[in-house]
Amino acid sequence: MSFDRLLAPRTKNISASALRELLKVSGQPGMISLSGGYPAPDSFPVDIMDTLMDKVFEKYGTTALQYGTTEGFNPLREALVSYVARRGIKAKMDDIYISSGSQGFLDAVGKILINKGDCVAVEAPTYLGALQAFNAYEPQYIRLEMDDEGVIPESVEETLKSHLIKFIYLVPTFQNPTGRTMGLERRKRIAAIIQAHDALAVEDDPYSELRYRGERIPTLKSLAPDHVIYASTLSKVFAPGFRVGFYIAPESLRTWLIRVKQGVDLNTSTFTQALAAEYIANGFLEKQIPKIVEIYRPKQEAMLGALEAHLTGEFKWIKPDGGMFIWVIGPKGMDMEAYYHKAVEKKVAFVPGKFFFTQKGEGLETMRLNYTSPDITSIEKGVKILSEVLKA
Amino acid sequence: MSFDRLLAPRTKNISASALRELLKVSGQPGMISLSGGYPAPDSFPVDIMDTLMDKVFEKYGTTALQYGTTEGFNPLREALVSYVARRGIKAKMDDIYISSGSQGFLDAVGKILINKGDCVAVEAPTYLGALQAFNAYEPQYIRLEMDDEGVIPESVEETLKSHLIKFIYLVPTFQNPTGRTMGLERRKRIAAIIQAHDALAVEDDPYSELRYRGERIPTLKSLAPDHVIYASTLSKVFAPGFRVGFYIAPESLRTWLIRVKQGVDLNTSTFTQALAAEYIANGFLEKQIPKIVEIYRPKQEAMLGALEAHLTGEFKWIKPDGGMFIWVIGPKGMDMEAYYHKAVEKKVAFVPGKFFFTQKGEGLETMRLNYTSPDITSIEKGVKILSEVLKA
Repeated sequence: MSFDRLLAPRTKNISASALRELLKVSGQPGMISLSGGYPAPDSFPVDIMDTLMDKVFEKYGTTALQYGTTEGFNPLREALVSYVARRGIKAKMDDIYISSGSQGFLDAVGKILINKGDCVAVEAPTYLGALQAFNAYEPQYIRLEMDDEGVIPESVEETLKSHLIKFIYLVPTFQNPTGRTMGLERRKRIAAIIQAHDALAVEDDPYSELRYRGERIPTLKSLAPDHVIYASTLSKVFAPGFRVGFYIAPESLRTWLIRVKQGVDLNTSTFTQALAAEYIANGFLEKQIPKIVEIYRPKQEAMLGALEAHLTGEFKWIKPDGGMFIWVIGPKGMDMEAYYHKAVEKKVAFVPGKFFFTQKGEGLETMRLNYTSPDITSIEKGVKILSEVLKA
Repeated sequence: MSFDRLLAPRTKNISASALRELLKVSGQPGMISLSGGYPAPDSFPVDIMDTLMDKVFEKYGTTALQYGTTEGFNPLREALVSYVARRGIKAKMDDIYISSGSQGFLDAVGKILINKGDCVAVEAPTYLGALQAFNAYEPQYIRLEMDDEGVIPESVEETLKSHLIKFIYLVPTFQNPTGRTMGLERRKRIAAIIQAHDALAVEDDPYSELRYRGERIPTLKSLAPDHVIYASTLSKVFAPGFRVGFYIAPESLRTWLIRVKQGVDLNTSTFTQALAAEYIANGFLEKQIPKIVEIYRPKQEAMLGALEAHLTGEFKWIKPDGGMFIWVIGPKGMDMEAYYHKAVEKKVAFVPGKFFFTQKGEGLETMRLNYTSPDITSIEKGVKILSEVLKA
């Protein structure tokens, strides 16, 4: 019995499964996977889980097991106030809303804003999960030009002048997939442009705590508070299996974001929110972040070192100060997908970069490498093999 | 700064907040709330949570904290095989998909099927959470006539003949809001009609384990397996704060349901899924259900007894064999919302029934009462006060 005839037109838009099919092999036994976007399991604070659970039942009792408000579990919202403060964001508990991972927020913002054919401006390349969330609402993507410091302000300005843009989606810090970070001056210029055009920007910031060197840079939200929805997650600093994200939106959008979330999942798991509240409020998060950084920094250095040692000549790559990814750019005309298949034969997987672009034919010569998930030996071995494949 | 101008047309469809506004008072101190739909906190298996968590870390380690597949955590899907078998549903692990509560499934099915203006057939009255999920996709609702035994088969047949129906949404057992249950003969007729028209039905079954008397009735899914998506949840038999639901869909729809979920929340909390898996696999669920039934049965009896004692004459109500609600029908012409305000003054809250209907002007004389959340003393006192208000 096929019910294909019943599918809504939007559904066919969500069919972009080429990447998923491609990556199926990356889980094969013996494969060195540099393709994922997973945190390292040893970054999870497993040792304090018992303590957290005891605290949750002691403080909240059965409330932690009950339905909760769509806005989020108040003790978590309260705990997040000082967490976002160190990113320069002034927010009260009532300003902070909880989502089911950042993904839940991305779906909600797409749902309330995007009508079929509406323009959404995104970095080229951009985060694939955001495209997956937005695609269901059938937008038209306008690409924003990037250089090594992220989005180029002139490109934002021109785009806002020439199109009616619903919102601009940006990952200013340690971007997925490129690892690029926008400097302060550029952030200020973009903030000014957004304000001048009375435009709306979504600042997605999952990685800023994963900084291995250099100084923290103020968030775009802190520079244009009325024009930016700031979204982040605990997936990279607690555990993704809890599915806890959060966001701070301009007041006029909040009611709508909550109403759509009510239809989508009623509320994010009260229990995992309560665990997160105790994790932050008791200072465990503060202690965990340096541990996570010390796990990832040597992995990133190992990958950068291996690239330096093995991949020469026509290949360039970005050296980010943090995050989870390294972006490699091959010579123009190179088809990285063809090399993907060759690398997989040699038991190394990566993500061909073209999947992060909204325009066909872009980024064919690029690839994204992840270093948080594999161990250092695998990283070194994987990059060596990969380099041999690329140079062959 | 207002961004109202940026909202998608669908968003205004989700504005039906009249009920939410109305119910805000039901949380006031001293209020006897018969309005909610919450399980009783003493129905939660708090005493075994430590055991469950130990088992989770012992068996799954950090996997329980990591991202998981969108389809669901395999040990939970495996554990659900025998759980659905006792509802007459033959399913393998691969046939069962996990959602973030039933709500997550309702959103997904709306998203893949409903295009603006498409017809969806629903019971009159029907579950409000389903309408909230579907409304975002802008359907047109076709009402299905009900009597004391649920949906009338002739109404289903006529509706399928006269309209192109995307799907029929049914809660056949202890329906929310009416508590009505469809008998076996009627289920068989509806199964035959759906099959004859090659139509798609969604069977939402959150309450069937909450049976206080009488025999279990086979699910619609077991009678028309190829034409029914069966959806259920652990919210009423484990804890709603975990947000774990599940569904079994015809094969041709599965890929699409998974793809939209990937854009919405990537995966349901791996951690709460792992807890649920151990809850079921170790036989705790089996032991908990009779305890829950023994908490709710006396509460339901108390409410039915109080109605019998105090509410006479022109009022009727349905006496369900299970579930969470009692549906009271007043004399035609009565405006229950006006009585709601009077009852709230006397510190008793309920839900005026009109909110469960898709057509304006229907069900004005009806109300829904919940008995799982309040204690027996409150139920008796609340119904007594309510009866006085209604008779005044």
